[in-house]
Amino acid sequence: MSNELNAFFDRVRPAIEDTLEQLLPSESASPVQIHKAMRYSTLGAGKRIRPCLCVAAFTAYRNDWKPILRVASAVELIHSYSLIHDDLPAMDDDDLRRGKPSCHKQFGEAIAILAGDALLTLAFEVLSGSKDFTADRVLRVISMLGRAAGTCGGMIAGQVMDLEAEGAPVSADQLQNIHRSKTGALIGASVWTGAYLGGASDSDLETIAGFCDRIGLAFQVIDDILDAIGGKDRDQEKATYPALHGLEKSRTIAHHLMEDAKQVISPLGTRGQLLVDFCDYLDNRTH
Amino acid sequence: MSNELNAFFDRVRPAIEDTLEQLLPSESASPVQIHKAMRYSTLGAGKRIRPCLCVAAFTAYRNDWKPILRVASAVELIHSYSLIHDDLPAMDDDDLRRGKPSCHKQFGEAIAILAGDALLTLAFEVLSGSKDFTADRVLRVISMLGRAAGTCGGMIAGQVMDLEAEGAPVSADQLQNIHRSKTGALIGASVWTGAYLGGASDSDLETIAGFCDRIGLAFQVIDDILDAIGGKDRDQEKATYPALHGLEKSRTIAHHLMEDAKQVISPLGTRGQLLVDFCDYLDNRTH
Repeated sequence: MSNELNAFFDRVRPAIEDTLEQLLPSESASPVQIHKAMRYSTLGAGKRIRPCLCVAAFTAYRNDWKPILRVASAVELIHSYSLIHDDLPAMDDDDLRRGKPSCHKQFGEAIAILAGDALLTLAFEVLSGSKDFTADRVLRVISMLGRAAGTCGGMIAGQVMDLEAEGAPVSADQLQNIHRSKTGALIGASVWTGAYLGGASDSDLETIAGFCDRIGLAFQVIDDILDAIGGKDRDQEKATYPALHGLEKSRTIAHHLMEDAKQVISPLGTRGQLLVDFCDYLDNRTH
Repeated sequence: MSNELNAFFDRVRPAIEDTLEQLLPSESASPVQIHKAMRYSTLGAGKRIRPCLCVAAFTAYRNDWKPILRVASAVELIHSYSLIHDDLPAMDDDDLRRGKPSCHKQFGEAIAILAGDALLTLAFEVLSGSKDFTADRVLRVISMLGRAAGTCGGMIAGQVMDLEAEGAPVSADQLQNIHRSKTGALIGASVWTGAYLGGASDSDLETIAGFCDRIGLAFQVIDDILDAIGGKDRDQEKATYPALHGLEKSRTIAHHLMEDAKQVISPLGTRGQLLVDFCDYLDNRTH
């Protein structure tokens, strides 16, 4: 990892953690159980990739990154909700998440469903309370994130296609489509949101949209590879890149996507350096 | 029902239905299953009480009610999501909803969870796209509705308390608190939103907040009564007004709350007439 990215993580991750801590209702607030579950599944773990990408894109245009923390944390709330619901027995049925019992194992299924609902609701409430940007811009961000989390090319679309693909053969195109929707859309929207609120020009935003497209897909391919190395997903016959293309070819695909992402963003010059470092960091995780 | 309210329903309900029809992704849009489920659970049934209340409050201040249809329909999307998740096996485990199989019975549990998530997400995306009001006002509405749907005195708080109360004795105060949160908050927010976007003065909004408080609670008491008459909820040992107070006293409580609501809103004069008619209509449903 570059020294710059390392220093960036050291400063930004604790700030994201603090912001999440403040945005989430206290464990002592009634009803206690739901707030415990929301905090249990959100705080203290997770690499905060999405909010960090959002902050990194923001800092390409602004020196002060504090104003973006609230929005970046809202993206993490959406991610956290999606993990809780993905783990449910009716979905991926995962007992473990980030090394501890998943939300429904710890709090029961009803509370886990409601905790996911609550984190999603809170994310939009938090976004609506952003005072650091014009109301027009905040509305556009809500619209973009809603779309990225939704059923038309967004996260829920990806999850549905993923469920439908279980145990059935999928083509390379289908799998790419699942990954772009399930993970790529929200990863991409995190970067786009940071750059947009940072004040990127329309032409830069277009460049960044192309970057988002590549890094979003690459991120899920890498996630597949890490799962395969860790022995996950095989028994569920999940549609993954290693299952379809093998481990080595998946690494090559991820690497090429990341090189492509770096190439696409090169017109940004030094502005884009932290995002380039991010690509290298994610790419290197598979080795 | 007053002739005015009757005419209002005849005009507004089809307009809400049309708006929902347009806002929901088409059944042919991929992934098909999730869009079918979202439409199945939202269109063609339901009394549209929340959006109608929203429109009624809007028309207290504006002659043209078309501009509020989008926001009013977003409230119905939130309501529709909550019904799907409430019906899930881990929650109330209801096989029927509005006379047909509930969403998870028709589409399976995974799709039902995701369809609820998707309707909630869509609601906020739809709200963010309201072009008929200033961005500042739209953000305030998103914040209010997020709060009304959330865990701090909102719908999810009510659902959690409701689950916790199952089979356990609850006091009259606790039950009132559950009902205010579970249903009252969103009913109230529907009215408030309509009046606020219609341009009600701060003083009127304060009056309306008092009205919302009463009609919201009364609405759930009436719902309890209708369920009791219909033979529902008894076997689940749900905390309800008829179970705690008996049927006749519950009717009296609902009636007094509605009379109180009408009294509170009386300073609005003829402006508030349709909302007064609404109180009478809801109150009369229990007889």
